[in-house]
Amino acid sequence: MIDLRSDTVTKPSDEMRESAHDADVGDDVYGEDPTVNELETRAAELMGMEAALYVPTGTMGNQIAARVHTDRGQEILVERESHIYKWELGGLAQHAGLQVRTLDGGERGIPTPEQVKSGYVEEDAHRPGTGLLSLENTHNSKGGVAIAPEEIDAAADAAHELGVPVHLDGARVCNAAVAHDVPPARFTEEIDSVMFCLSKGLGAPVGSMLAGSEDFIARARRTRKLFGGGMRQVGVLAGPGLLALDNVSRLVDDHENARVLGEKLADIDGLAVQPPETNIVLVNTENAGLTADEFLTACEEMGVLGTQFDTHVVRFCTHWDVNRGNVETAAEAVRDAV
Amino acid sequence: MIDLRSDTVTKPSDEMRESAHDADVGDDVYGEDPTVNELETRAAELMGMEAALYVPTGTMGNQIAARVHTDRGQEILVERESHIYKWELGGLAQHAGLQVRTLDGGERGIPTPEQVKSGYVEEDAHRPGTGLLSLENTHNSKGGVAIAPEEIDAAADAAHELGVPVHLDGARVCNAAVAHDVPPARFTEEIDSVMFCLSKGLGAPVGSMLAGSEDFIARARRTRKLFGGGMRQVGVLAGPGLLALDNVSRLVDDHENARVLGEKLADIDGLAVQPPETNIVLVNTENAGLTADEFLTACEEMGVLGTQFDTHVVRFCTHWDVNRGNVETAAEAVRDAV
Amino acid sequence: MIDLRSDTVTKPSDEMRESAHDADVGDDVYGEDPTVNELETRAAELMGMEAALYVPTGTMGNQIAARVHTDRGQEILVERESHIYKWELGGLAQHAGLQVRTLDGGERGIPTPEQVKSGYVEEDAHRPGTGLLSLENTHNSKGGVAIAPEEIDAAADAAHELGVPVHLDGARVCNAAVAHDVPPARFTEEIDSVMFCLSKGLGAPVGSMLAGSEDFIARARRTRKLFGGGMRQVGVLAGPGLLALDNVSRLVDDHENARVLGEKLADIDGLAVQPPETNIVLVNTENAGLTADEFLTACEEMGVLGTQFDTHVVRFCTHWDVNRGNVETAAEAVRDAV
Amino acid sequence: MIDLRSDTVTKPSDEMRESAHDADVGDDVYGEDPTVNELETRAAELMGMEAALYVPTGTMGNQIAARVHTDRGQEILVERESHIYKWELGGLAQHAGLQVRTLDGGERGIPTPEQVKSGYVEEDAHRPGTGLLSLENTHNSKGGVAIAPEEIDAAADAAHELGVPVHLDGARVCNAAVAHDVPPARFTEEIDSVMFCLSKGLGAPVGSMLAGSEDFIARARRTRKLFGGGMRQVGVLAGPGLLALDNVSRLVDDHENARVLGEKLADIDGLAVQPPETNIVLVNTENAGLTADEFLTACEEMGVLGTQFDTHVVRFCTHWDVNRGNVETAAEAVRDAV
Repeated sequence: MIDLRSDTVTKPSDEMRESAHDADVGDDVYGEDPTVNELETRAAELMGMEAALYVPTGTMGNQIAARVHTDRGQEILVERESHIYKWELGGLAQHAGLQVRTLDGGERGIPTPEQVKSGYVEEDAHRPGTGLLSLENTHNSKGGVAIAPEEIDAAADAAHELGVPVHLDGARVCNAAVAHDVPPARFTEEIDSVMFCLSKGLGAPVGSMLAGSEDFIARARRTRKLFGGGMRQVGVLAGPGLLALDNVSRLVDDHENARVLGEKLADIDGLAVQPPETNIVLVNTENAGLTADEFLTACEEMGVLGTQFDTHVVRFCTHWDVNRGNVETAAEAVRDAV
Repeated sequence: MIDLRSDTVTKPSDEMRESAHDADVGDDVYGEDPTVNELETRAAELMGMEAALYVPTGTMGNQIAARVHTDRGQEILVERESHIYKWELGGLAQHAGLQVRTLDGGERGIPTPEQVKSGYVEEDAHRPGTGLLSLENTHNSKGGVAIAPEEIDAAADAAHELGVPVHLDGARVCNAAVAHDVPPARFTEEIDSVMFCLSKGLGAPVGSMLAGSEDFIARARRTRKLFGGGMRQVGVLAGPGLLALDNVSRLVDDHENARVLGEKLADIDGLAVQPPETNIVLVNTENAGLTADEFLTACEEMGVLGTQFDTHVVRFCTHWDVNRGNVETAAEAVRDAV
Repeated sequence: MIDLRSDTVTKPSDEMRESAHDADVGDDVYGEDPTVNELETRAAELMGMEAALYVPTGTMGNQIAARVHTDRGQEILVERESHIYKWELGGLAQHAGLQVRTLDGGERGIPTPEQVKSGYVEEDAHRPGTGLLSLENTHNSKGGVAIAPEEIDAAADAAHELGVPVHLDGARVCNAAVAHDVPPARFTEEIDSVMFCLSKGLGAPVGSMLAGSEDFIARARRTRKLFGGGMRQVGVLAGPGLLALDNVSRLVDDHENARVLGEKLADIDGLAVQPPETNIVLVNTENAGLTADEFLTACEEMGVLGTQFDTHVVRFCTHWDVNRGNVETAAEAVRDAV
Repeated sequence: MIDLRSDTVTKPSDEMRESAHDADVGDDVYGEDPTVNELETRAAELMGMEAALYVPTGTMGNQIAARVHTDRGQEILVERESHIYKWELGGLAQHAGLQVRTLDGGERGIPTPEQVKSGYVEEDAHRPGTGLLSLENTHNSKGGVAIAPEEIDAAADAAHELGVPVHLDGARVCNAAVAHDVPPARFTEEIDSVMFCLSKGLGAPVGSMLAGSEDFIARARRTRKLFGGGMRQVGVLAGPGLLALDNVSRLVDDHENARVLGEKLADIDGLAVQPPETNIVLVNTENAGLTADEFLTACEEMGVLGTQFDTHVVRFCTHWDVNRGNVETAAEAVRDAV
């Protein structure tokens, strides 16, 4: 079975398993886990931020950021297909009491500065003020598109002019960095906080990092405790996490595999493929006379797994556990399935 | 000064003042205010519902409805320019923990059944389920447009097919009734709860009614207490409220005055007027080379008050305290102002 | 029927009804109701505060205060039998996300400075910090005891030394003022906000006042809108409210009536009476071999109404609509009932 | 340095490290991690429950349980010194909107059935109803006392008679089981959900288990996602977790070491020791003329670490990384420190 459902399915490498085995650990609630501390220092550096915090999931990182940046009774500006709005169980209202205002970021999921300005609400007697703008890069629902640093800068600058801080859901920001051939920190120059995942393309078994100013991270650490995310000898996860930080350049392979997969699938009659920019391939099955569900069932019978995104849209995701050969085999299997 | 800012500015008539004076009262927290009880009975009848509840404001009525219909962690579907979303201080997240999903109801602010269906989210492991659809009629931000009963029915039916209850923000539903020449209850045939205001065109000094099933109203009554809306000898307000119920047919005058005002304003160079359907006249000032703010300042100097709706959009609202002569005078004053 | 259930049951006097009839009104959401404005000014003066706000209920006043004083995720210190904790539907958690920490104020419901200090929690990595102390005077559940100004000062000072603001639930603080023969403002010298009711002993049909600093009231005004408490031509209620402010000294009669009632009831075999300090008489029915419920049923048959407070405790409350003769009749009726 | 601050500081054994290294893993968000699945099955069996769920921390487990068992606007009954109330950052109000009502469980921290009944609040027009009773065993703040199964049963039965479900914060319930020489499941016979920690005396680096009915766990799993606790290849933690389940009987050693430590400390002039029932030793330093802070500083200089519990109370905690020799050395060091 070739599993292209998500880059979250990767299994830790032998080296990562050994790092879990060998990690120097301590009680991280007391701040005494040296491996976690090293990971937080290195993650902050990678993102060009003052400080960072290990969190068990990207969802927790995003939700902590939303809560720490805002006061109760405010609004948050999000792209209408963004993960923080769509796939996190309504946490923005639950955890932070935020009213969501959506911006339509178009085909690439990035709001323009004008959209940010028009979505902004000034606090008055009847209206909650805008407390945060959240961006996403790469944008998952839009097919892993790698938004350019300048576009992130522009949206963030527009928010800052209005006094609104900006969070970046950078679950796959390292993919964006590789796609644009810049360091990940290039995306955070105008950003107040960023979350990125160790557990997706970077291959760690568990975990994400939240980075920002020292003050922000101090408050995020306390909020992590509120969420039940303050773990103990978590160096056993931070060890693999440190290795994950070395995997950024490796993402080139996933992107190349996605490109190849995209090309091969595009050759199949009835399939419309959005040319992948990173490691996500969106396939529209409508012209093949198949629903996404029917298509995926057929693929599974041929040994390939993907994810339904919409009635006629399927996502395939390349990752560490899939090599060029797998991708070519998968494309053939899909052809047979259709 | 001719005050066209809102139909909320009306002062109670002599008859209403006398009804406040003469009202038979009791402690409504104990359910012992006979005037309130009569008002709740008659309001329920007017709306074709089993039961009704007096609330101090329309905002409280809407927010109570949102909370009673839903479970925490759900989504609410609202029109993107609706009052419940835009002008109630983010209460949906604050009071009920609801994540908002907006539908674009177009020029008339009414979502189609297809939009309702596409906005619906089925509860799963990652997504909050849709717990409520809220509609608005007349739609304030769209210029008091009177949505047809059939359109309300259609949107509500679409929600019901998905198991989603429907609330109607009918702050001005009596205006819609008059515009369509149907009883107000015609709009609630497929609706689970409705809020309407006694304090707008119907002329009461204070108050709104929330109507629905007996079970819904029982739960709303308890939630009203939570909100701090359980008042005592409130018959002094319910007395005028009862008279307000008799004012539905009188709204014809406001609509006719709005029509006249709209025609006269449309004759003024540079002003673009959206033909009013009820008692709200939206005026676009852009071609006059004036911002809404500049325009309103000039009008005020000439003795006419309105409300800014957008950078170049102004709202004038007719009501009980404005007669035909006032409207004609106001139109002349605006002409002079421009 | 002599209704001693609560001082909330009073019906407005003719004078109050006339003031409702004659009130000069405007739209209070725009701040244009002159009667409300006058009421807010005079209420602030009465309480020795910078500013005041009209709210439909005492519950809303208390809950707004709790929210405005605190940040989400804090604790509030309350007396364990206080109204804000016991009778407001859990609003402290619902509206403000506050965790309650209770202090046992003993027989008189007033925490000592030492108790305040020991209840204080310093914010740290595991604990929510204390954000507010709420006191109550007179203390309803303790039988309307009139806590001395010095005791209020002492508890408030202890809180202030810890950086914690103090709210006074003064629903019946005017009764406390009369009992101690001081102006109501004497109780707020060390207090940051106070709520008092116009609708209890002061006799207004509806409403309470929240008073504090100008900044506090500005934020409270906005929060009132969030709660759905921003009403329109509410001068029809503020008129009677203004007259209520003149009724403070009249409370002497209620207290004297309560004293007489208490003495007469204490003479009845089997009834134990807590000597009343204000207008509340607590009666223990245990030695009469009656539950509170049985006792109240018997009283009702004899034409007297009271309220159950506990299994064997009943509250009788004197008020404007009850004179000396009523009280004497009531005592006889209770004797017959027992 | 002999670290007796907490049983959370234990470092994973070689065997556990190897199990992390060797664990068969999958994406647990898809339910595909075989090691997690095995752990959940075995944990459910150990607790005599239908199902179980892995959570990153005990705090998350407790908070999820509180949210799943209740509706918004309810009350929760907790012991006044319980962890869920005192050390979880006010999460009960934040995550679940619950108002806390505390019971004074006395020296052993276990409410009697009578206390449960008297703390129960029946939902009515003014009061939130009681939605959950939470118990704790062993009770940390009371010094690790091992509450007897019969006492847990009795409190739980009292709650059930009132229709209130019961959660057990069993962070150290395995210590209680060993102390009473019964299987852990003996404590859950009348319990609706239980949380216990793999990361304390059982020695796992990270993680806790929440157990209950299948329906409860299904809802808890979704709520875990909301909290950001749904991790990926978490088998690397579940492997050590499985080994931790085998460590229950080993807790006898910690208890014996605590007993020895307690006896030796009790021999030191000025120290008052609460005889330990499990692995926690509470020492009162008042008669030694030392504050807890001074005492701990002195101990640290002599190579022993503990935790401050109160102004004059210190907690020492035995665990896997401390053997008999360490305990004896620690006792000598403390003697020198005093």
